[in-house]
Amino acid sequence: MGEPIPFRGEDLRVQLTEASAFRNQDFVFFSAGASRSREFIPHAIQEQAYVIDNSSAFRMQSDVPLVVPEVNGHLLTTSTHLIANPNCTAALLLMTLAPLRKLGQLSRVIVSTYQSASGAGAQAMEELRSQTRCFLDGEPVVPNILPHPYAFNLFSHNTPIGDDGANEEEAKVVEETRKILDDSRLPMNVTCVRVPVLRAHSESVTVEFAGERPSLEAVREAWAAMPGVQIVDDRAANLFPMPISASGGDDVLVGRLRNDPSHENAISYFLAGDQLLKGAALNAVQIAESLAALR
Amino acid sequence: MGEPIPFRGEDLRVQLTEASAFRNQDFVFFSAGASRSREFIPHAIQEQAYVIDNSSAFRMQSDVPLVVPEVNGHLLTTSTHLIANPNCTAALLLMTLAPLRKLGQLSRVIVSTYQSASGAGAQAMEELRSQTRCFLDGEPVVPNILPHPYAFNLFSHNTPIGDDGANEEEAKVVEETRKILDDSRLPMNVTCVRVPVLRAHSESVTVEFAGERPSLEAVREAWAAMPGVQIVDDRAANLFPMPISASGGDDVLVGRLRNDPSHENAISYFLAGDQLLKGAALNAVQIAESLAALR
Repeated sequence: MGEPIPFRGEDLRVQLTEASAFRNQDFVFFSAGASRSREFIPHAIQEQAYVIDNSSAFRMQSDVPLVVPEVNGHLLTTSTHLIANPNCTAALLLMTLAPLRKLGQLSRVIVSTYQSASGAGAQAMEELRSQTRCFLDGEPVVPNILPHPYAFNLFSHNTPIGDDGANEEEAKVVEETRKILDDSRLPMNVTCVRVPVLRAHSESVTVEFAGERPSLEAVREAWAAMPGVQIVDDRAANLFPMPISASGGDDVLVGRLRNDPSHENAISYFLAGDQLLKGAALNAVQIAESLAALR
Repeated sequence: MGEPIPFRGEDLRVQLTEASAFRNQDFVFFSAGASRSREFIPHAIQEQAYVIDNSSAFRMQSDVPLVVPEVNGHLLTTSTHLIANPNCTAALLLMTLAPLRKLGQLSRVIVSTYQSASGAGAQAMEELRSQTRCFLDGEPVVPNILPHPYAFNLFSHNTPIGDDGANEEEAKVVEETRKILDDSRLPMNVTCVRVPVLRAHSESVTVEFAGERPSLEAVREAWAAMPGVQIVDDRAANLFPMPISASGGDDVLVGRLRNDPSHENAISYFLAGDQLLKGAALNAVQIAESLAALR
């Protein structure tokens, strides 16, 4: 508290969050976990602020819109004071999935993820760096923030597992994707895995259509028309979406598009996106910009 | 050439491979790429040696058995002089897939891989180590062996892409899995990805059955009865197969078993195995041992 944070040439000072802090604020962004959001968001709303919550606290509450502006921005109105920002893995997936709906009804989505350290926070990124250095120096690797050794290793997403065998991350991806697509029964199979990448998540995706599979050309056109999606699909150069290409960028990269040889109505593709940007901060700012444009 | 290699207390000297080198050899292992195999294997066979070839040269030749001993070891006979050792990703997958056949007919297999540097050889492992050190030291990362930066990054498998959009690794996994299961039309969808792991491949797998899905208990029993497969599936401890657990071990680790919520007749699971062992050297030695037991 009191620490100065440089911002656009000014030094802003970190202050204690109190109920009174939200007075006369137009927009308030919450990004400090679900319990902080539950405690303070009611105060911010009482002050008539527009609240964009990056936590999972209100995402599945039926009267709270969960928004990726390019997908369901129409839910934003001047009287919407609380908007939830979705899970990062879901947000990236939605950017590539939503444009496919105009090509046919989605009947099943199968996803395996390659999630980076940044999804677990700055300390996890530092743990990956420091563990890796220890490993290369022949020193012991001791997990601290994450439950398993991370240097040159990977593991199933470190969230609790439910009775159905899905971990919480997978459950979020499924329920949030369904809510944002307004398709509460969309069959989905999601496997979430943490890989030793510092930043940007990747996803291997197979989509089945209820009717005939669209042409790959039609899929490319649908993605090309989607703001925030960039096609990286150069078979000759073997160049497809990679985390280092996506890191620091606003766009979700998508490619390796091909027909699924195991199902006549399915396609497969691969995506990479910076989950700190479109998967979190950028999407939150875009929600605020969309609201500001309405006022 | 002439370099001494210590082996069980002896120094063996590396010699030039010549046609005459195979005289009076019982077993000859080839692991020097497809062109060397094509050149020298005919000479070894002429000398009545049993030849186990780790290259892809003869794998799909109809009169050459492609063998994972636990799966189709019955193909080995005293008159079988050339045996192909399968692709590493296929071998690991087969160890978990084959036992499921007694529970029902497999109707579709969907796989996304997490392949380690060792699959591309010792130089690729060294490249991953040295690039990672450069990255941590703030020095530029320059790809050399592999086409893309590897430190804290991942990329689609670096083999040429065919007209159907599958890369050569994916094509191998599909055709070799079908050959070994003796199921030439099994629908398969495989996505091969290289991740910054030094050793041991992992795979996220979904299997659909033609009939009713077996119980998870039946799947566990089938795996438990399979030599070379070890179940690592502790939901409470969030402990599942990881590359570092599989590295250096003979067993293929399998877990994260659950019903596929998107398909009533499907299951999903995750595996990790040391592709230098069961995916290559161990399997080759097991083939030789099986042949030796027949003589």
